[in-house]
Amino acid sequence: MTIGVLGGGQLGRMLALGGAPLGQRFLFVDPSRESCAAHVGELLLGPYDDEKTLTELARRSQVVTFEFENVDLGAARYLSELVPVFPPPRALAVSQDRFAEKSFFREHGIPTPPYHAVNSRAELDAAGEALGFPFVLKTRRFGYDGKGQFVVRAASDLPTAWDTLGAFPLLAEGFVPFTREVSVVGARRPGGETAVYPLFENTHQGGVLRRSVLRPNDPMQAAAEALLRRAMEELDYVGVLTLELFDRGGELFANEMAPRVHNSGHLTIEGCEASQFEMHVRAILDLPLGSTLPRAKAGMLNILGAPPPLPALLALPGSHVHLYGKSAVPGRKCGHVTFLADTDAELQARLDAGAALIASSSV
Amino acid sequence: MTIGVLGGGQLGRMLALGGAPLGQRFLFVDPSRESCAAHVGELLLGPYDDEKTLTELARRSQVVTFEFENVDLGAARYLSELVPVFPPPRALAVSQDRFAEKSFFREHGIPTPPYHAVNSRAELDAAGEALGFPFVLKTRRFGYDGKGQFVVRAASDLPTAWDTLGAFPLLAEGFVPFTREVSVVGARRPGGETAVYPLFENTHQGGVLRRSVLRPNDPMQAAAEALLRRAMEELDYVGVLTLELFDRGGELFANEMAPRVHNSGHLTIEGCEASQFEMHVRAILDLPLGSTLPRAKAGMLNILGAPPPLPALLALPGSHVHLYGKSAVPGRKCGHVTFLADTDAELQARLDAGAALIASSSV
Repeated sequence: MTIGVLGGGQLGRMLALGGAPLGQRFLFVDPSRESCAAHVGELLLGPYDDEKTLTELARRSQVVTFEFENVDLGAARYLSELVPVFPPPRALAVSQDRFAEKSFFREHGIPTPPYHAVNSRAELDAAGEALGFPFVLKTRRFGYDGKGQFVVRAASDLPTAWDTLGAFPLLAEGFVPFTREVSVVGARRPGGETAVYPLFENTHQGGVLRRSVLRPNDPMQAAAEALLRRAMEELDYVGVLTLELFDRGGELFANEMAPRVHNSGHLTIEGCEASQFEMHVRAILDLPLGSTLPRAKAGMLNILGAPPPLPALLALPGSHVHLYGKSAVPGRKCGHVTFLADTDAELQARLDAGAALIASSSV
Repeated sequence: MTIGVLGGGQLGRMLALGGAPLGQRFLFVDPSRESCAAHVGELLLGPYDDEKTLTELARRSQVVTFEFENVDLGAARYLSELVPVFPPPRALAVSQDRFAEKSFFREHGIPTPPYHAVNSRAELDAAGEALGFPFVLKTRRFGYDGKGQFVVRAASDLPTAWDTLGAFPLLAEGFVPFTREVSVVGARRPGGETAVYPLFENTHQGGVLRRSVLRPNDPMQAAAEALLRRAMEELDYVGVLTLELFDRGGELFANEMAPRVHNSGHLTIEGCEASQFEMHVRAILDLPLGSTLPRAKAGMLNILGAPPPLPALLALPGSHVHLYGKSAVPGRKCGHVTFLADTDAELQARLDAGAALIASSSV
């Protein structure tokens, strides 16, 4: 059986590594010959919106999925007339537009920071008035890893913010003084069966995820799960869905959702019974979902830019190294390391040792 | 970096799945287009002894290894003049010939059942005289999974045994009334660093491995490890080496060795910190070896012939399913399932449930 995937980056690569043990083959559409997913599957070289490429993908695949959310909606809908496409294109549509996403959350009782659509300089000023400072101005579409965002710290920043981003449809979002960022990742089958992982607690730098730690038995687990399940139900979702949340002292606010496997869930490969990658494959093939139970204390560090030497990474106690086979560009996600441990203190020490090594070499 | 592999079966496939997270790519030489390893790597279609194919393999690989021991020795030696080849061709030579293998064991103080080379009907009769009945007559070369073997139960079997196998160089081996079969699997780096897994206790049927169970803290661990380490040292071995042993109430006898990852070690993928596949890749790249510590109670069942339906396999508690993407032929190894558990009793129950399901569908 072949699973078609739009996108050939590291998420596709890990989908293939997670799905191969279930006897699945993977066919990736990507416009770049350098796609690292193609090292462990087959590459269909072509643009994401090319009908010929998509038709061949559909013809050769039992089901099609994607590894990034900015898939051309027309392409997703074209494919879905030829072959089952999961997650459903509607989830793509909602998650591609921050205003549609926030409106979806609000409509279904999922709390969000206060927000306003901004399409003119006047609306920007009004948003500042309503939200107070600081607030965050974001492009509605195509943002990721902190790109397309501007923190407006005072009224005097408004002109620069508008000059920087005013050419795009925008969303102004109130700043939530959160105590921590968490994500909740789960899967849903067509019939409605769901499985949700323990929370991941995440640390970002410059808008980019740097560290995630598995938090079994977190006091916010039930509340976060309820929000994720509501989103999955409302979207008639199939596959892995991620909800990024701000926790303000026990009060959760949805930041955004990702209709796919998520960087914060990479630690499930070793840290949980079934990885998020295997889980996504199971869900889109309508197979019984796996167990999300933790197997150890687990945490993950991203490697941005050039990785430290492999011998040094492998020599870190408790490390499980994942390099994506990508060429190193400063700031680019080129790998991650998951650490397992028996106690929280041991995990913390291992993560800190790993972070020091990574900081010494990568950017 | 690319690792070249002679052979494109399931062991090669799992080498690629274990090595990809270290950023490695895999190039497989195999004469069959159906090679299941090629689903997760690249296939160089050609015979194993074709100089043109081997030259291309060497040119494109940083190091070459193999996933079966009956590699043409000339090919291995040809390759080793072009590129590092691990394990060393000498280990291949020893393990390809049961007489050379047993002689190697004896020479280095590794106990074996009594054995005699048999090259004539007279030598067969003499072997029966010396060993008593029953004894086992085996072809010296190309045997695997019980093929090329004849159990001689009485003097009256001698003519049939000779008619069946007399065309080949043979080994007659005394029958050891063992209490159990175990294997010891370990890795060695070029500099001499070694790492050895806990023992696997194995159950065969018809000469084919059916079940392996991880045995941490086994009373025979130290003795088995010492034998494995001796063999590795004497061969200046690099890579994963497996020693299959008979345990006769606390006395170990070497049955055979395999200069490669081994079916009994498949449970290391989930059952131990680092899998035997990752470990082999680390060893042949001269990287720090991983931890062999167990992560849970673990056992494995082979799937011969057609696998049970995937939903049923995935629904088995504690199961981790591995299907190789091979076409199902009766008796052919098409997959395995590893079970993890918290207690021995739970593991036993899970293995038995799995065995019942597998018996209901496969051959």
